[in-house]
Amino acid sequence: MTEFLTYTSAQEIVETIEEIRTQLQEKGGIRNLYLLGCGGSLAGLYPLDYFMRSEAKNISCRSMNANEFVYDTPKGCGENSIVICMSLAGTTPETVAAAKKAEEVNATVITMSLTTDCPLAQYGRYHWTYGSELRGNCSYQDVNLAKVLRFGMELLRIEEGYEKYEKGVAAFEVLDALCAKAKKQVSDRAVKFAEEHKDDAVIYTLASGATYCAAYMQTICMFMEMEWIHSGTIHAGELYHGPFEITDKNTPFFLFVNEGRTRFLDERAVRFLEKYSGRVTILDAKELGICIIDPEVVDYFNPILLWSCAVEYTRALADAKKHPLLQRRYMFKVEY
Amino acid sequence: MTEFLTYTSAQEIVETIEEIRTQLQEKGGIRNLYLLGCGGSLAGLYPLDYFMRSEAKNISCRSMNANEFVYDTPKGCGENSIVICMSLAGTTPETVAAAKKAEEVNATVITMSLTTDCPLAQYGRYHWTYGSELRGNCSYQDVNLAKVLRFGMELLRIEEGYEKYEKGVAAFEVLDALCAKAKKQVSDRAVKFAEEHKDDAVIYTLASGATYCAAYMQTICMFMEMEWIHSGTIHAGELYHGPFEITDKNTPFFLFVNEGRTRFLDERAVRFLEKYSGRVTILDAKELGICIIDPEVVDYFNPILLWSCAVEYTRALADAKKHPLLQRRYMFKVEY
Repeated sequence: MTEFLTYTSAQEIVETIEEIRTQLQEKGGIRNLYLLGCGGSLAGLYPLDYFMRSEAKNISCRSMNANEFVYDTPKGCGENSIVICMSLAGTTPETVAAAKKAEEVNATVITMSLTTDCPLAQYGRYHWTYGSELRGNCSYQDVNLAKVLRFGMELLRIEEGYEKYEKGVAAFEVLDALCAKAKKQVSDRAVKFAEEHKDDAVIYTLASGATYCAAYMQTICMFMEMEWIHSGTIHAGELYHGPFEITDKNTPFFLFVNEGRTRFLDERAVRFLEKYSGRVTILDAKELGICIIDPEVVDYFNPILLWSCAVEYTRALADAKKHPLLQRRYMFKVEY
Repeated sequence: MTEFLTYTSAQEIVETIEEIRTQLQEKGGIRNLYLLGCGGSLAGLYPLDYFMRSEAKNISCRSMNANEFVYDTPKGCGENSIVICMSLAGTTPETVAAAKKAEEVNATVITMSLTTDCPLAQYGRYHWTYGSELRGNCSYQDVNLAKVLRFGMELLRIEEGYEKYEKGVAAFEVLDALCAKAKKQVSDRAVKFAEEHKDDAVIYTLASGATYCAAYMQTICMFMEMEWIHSGTIHAGELYHGPFEITDKNTPFFLFVNEGRTRFLDERAVRFLEKYSGRVTILDAKELGICIIDPEVVDYFNPILLWSCAVEYTRALADAKKHPLLQRRYMFKVEY
């Protein structure tokens, strides 16, 4: 049995929500959420954004680039708002500034990063920690995508009575087994992908539903930042409304295919791209075993499974290209 | 004086809002907006999305790809919702399906397209028309970006008391003169851009604030759909969190620079990209004369001005590439 590092627990999340609820009881309660971050951390909040958009009846939710929030703070953000600010190392200046700004408008701020020992943790009434494979062994229940989703499910259970809550909790419990099995399943495919794509100048990513964030991370963090490959993210539902015209037999696509309500959008993209590109790499949550999760909540767990597998493809690509994952030319090296 | 075609007026927009308000008075009023479309039409709704996010105190707003709405309809969408469904020709099957779905959940549906004679107009309690240069002369007050913004300003004036309303109305009135002058200003630059970029395989677009939609349209409708050039849209605030690592002296960027609150984000991107790429094309709203609009509302008018100019660049590119704007290989030609 693998030893996992320890992070903010579901119990602590519940206690935070109960406390905020009590504090805001006489002020009109919790009205909305703002989710702030930059790059991969903004994407890491998206499963919560998507969950709230789909399931919340009363509490609204917006994601924003942290710096846009700093310079154009929404008027709706105030004492009835919970603001979550996420940054992996907790050092991102724009996200630290956003947490400060959110406190100034009297929102209840929760900051999230890998450790408590970081500039971001100085802001916010609450600071939560989450895990990442970059830092050491952690349960998939503790990665940012899962942690924020858990918050959403607990929040709606407490505030609105989320009827699928038990099914959601059960899903968290199978994540580690599910991801471990799927990662093994794709390891040879990842090496094959890397061989076939190591000289490509451009690779597009596609996804729908909660998994849109995984495609975005694959584009900006993996292909562009780590491997210096041109990329763009196409929402699977947007493909036929412009983007598909660049498709030809030389253009590669990296597709995330969900199980659940938006699967039809993904399958439609697969059909088109397999016919007109042929250079299509597919990560299919259904084929990777996600159906052990209840169909009523499966939508929200797709990105956790699919992202755990996508990382294997980028690692293989780095090997095939002999371009180390952590090689940078600008980040933390020049002024910007 | 140019003769303009006639579209839904500000007065009709106000009457619609008043009517919906009366209808929902005893049911809890207007609680949220959902903005639905695909591709360029989804982007065309974004100035309203951004305006609501910035200015609304109580009414929340979400934009969604129309087909994602059909397959995963938000629980928050119901009898207290206004749903706007936009499609240029009014024939987009996914958007027609979304309007139908929105009616099924008892939302008040407004459909928008160029004409009243289209499938989309069969749905929705209200149907509004807007103009496009594609169809003939129209005032910039009547393009989709402006029409939905006008709706937002009228809605907040009526529902929440929007204190900058008069400044907004004044801004609409100068749009035609502003855009006409700016388009002349960029016409030689557009030809130069086209000469320099006609053989490029990839051109990225960048923007922040309400203008993010213009960058998205430039990417998916202009570069990818019309000119078959690879592209991706980068939010100016996201640049340093991954995407900038693909920058080199050969990588071209097309930047929209706002006047207003998020200008700092755009100027920061200009500084970085001019230093490390050098192949940077800039459309700067300030330099193009937008400061005749009051600084308190200028943010929302940036995309209308900048998009009117961007179109000139794509026209010039089509000429230089000898690749007609309306040439397609898949759209309306194959099954998808």
